Amino acid sequence: MAIKFYGVAVSLPGARVLACLYEKNLEFELVKTAYRSQETKKEAFLSINPFGQIPALEDGDLKIFESRAMTQYLAHAYAEKGNQLVSQDHKKMAIISTWMEVESQKFSDVASKLSHELVMGPASGKTINVEVVRENEEKLAKILDVYEVKLKESKYLAGDYFTLADLHHLPVMHYLMNTKVKALFDERPHVSAWRTEILARVAWKKVVELQAPFFASMGAKN
Amino acid sequence: MAIKFYGVAVSLPGARVLACLYEKNLEFELVKTAYRSQETKKEAFLSINPFGQIPALEDGDLKIFESRAMTQYLAHAYAEKGNQLVSQDHKKMAIISTWMEVESQKFSDVASKLSHELVMGPASGKTINVEVVRENEEKLAKILDVYEVKLKESKYLAGDYFTLADLHHLPVMHYLMNTKVKALFDERPHVSAWRTEILARVAWKKVVELQAPFFASMGAKN
Repeated sequence: MAIKFYGVAVSLPGARVLACLYEKNLEFELVKTAYRSQETKKEAFLSINPFGQIPALEDGDLKIFESRAMTQYLAHAYAEKGNQLVSQDHKKMAIISTWMEVESQKFSDVASKLSHELVMGPASGKTINVEVVRENEEKLAKILDVYEVKLKESKYLAGDYFTLADLHHLPVMHYLMNTKVKALFDERPHVSAWRTEILARVAWKKVVELQAPFFASMGAKN
Repeated sequence: MAIKFYGVAVSLPGARVLACLYEKNLEFELVKTAYRSQETKKEAFLSINPFGQIPALEDGDLKIFESRAMTQYLAHAYAEKGNQLVSQDHKKMAIISTWMEVESQKFSDVASKLSHELVMGPASGKTINVEVVRENEEKLAKILDVYEVKLKESKYLAGDYFTLADLHHLPVMHYLMNTKVKALFDERPHVSAWRTEILARVAWKKVVELQAPFFASMGAKN
């Protein structure tokens, strides 16, 4: 098997790459052992990612890391496989890139902080920082106001078909649906419809299935 | 003239796109008026960037924003013009994407905070937050340790030629060279050589020339 993916489904970047692998209908080997940090600090893994972090990916002689670089590689290199997530047209690709950058530079930071406070924090027994939540809810509301206008114009962020720009939002959006932040999505009809549709994609459901044992074991501990 | 660039040379994202426009040897119209925030909140500008922020770019009927999306568009769409900053080969492009993501996800945040404290802060009379500086210097040192290993293997971050992965570092690195953070670059021989070479590029010098009047006027006010 040519593609080796080092990562875990419960991490936001790990889930992002897995969603892409499933969308592209690619066969791959999921290497889970690298999750232990001592493994990722060893020479063999550092030759894939010198920062010693998962996720990372090997495809034959190619060794790459950073989730959004991996999804872009898979979408471009395997353009003919599975669902089309990018475009070969420069202008169409520029729109996709723009909204990928919006996710990366605007949405991700704010949404990840909320997920960290409201999902990961309580799971590890941490008290929620109400001020951080309030501040980031306010920021997210403003971002989603712009998304609402955009999604009124086109069904997906970068146009009429599902692309990496939409896909990159899935992992953290999924976690936020179990928190009060869900209301910010519900209140905006076009954002709400977009959110519901992309979270229901077959490929994304496969990632959620991979996450299930982890959350089941957490529930068992509580 | 087909390309219209809305932005200013002194802003980090503005300088990033200008460096790319000069590297690609592209003719463009620099629209400076959009700097005033009231301009960027008007309907005409919001049709280019619904977030109402510069920089933004028009190329014929294409309207895009987010600096790293703009540089990728210019580098791919004008592959035959000026210097080659990307690759048509998927595996080579994956390496470039990986190091673009390292800049975007790791380097940029840390370096921008240092620039904010040590360059922008003092310029506007703000007291330097010593704790923020210490914390981010520590983070930057660790990132540059990995760069040092990488730049021992290849002359540039993504291989043997200058790409967007290197270019994206220029704006904030240039500002940090006038601060004590410069030492972190000087101490690492391969990082130091890389830094010196890419800051000396003809295209980058043109951006610095565009910045000069702004800093001259700031000096006059002090």
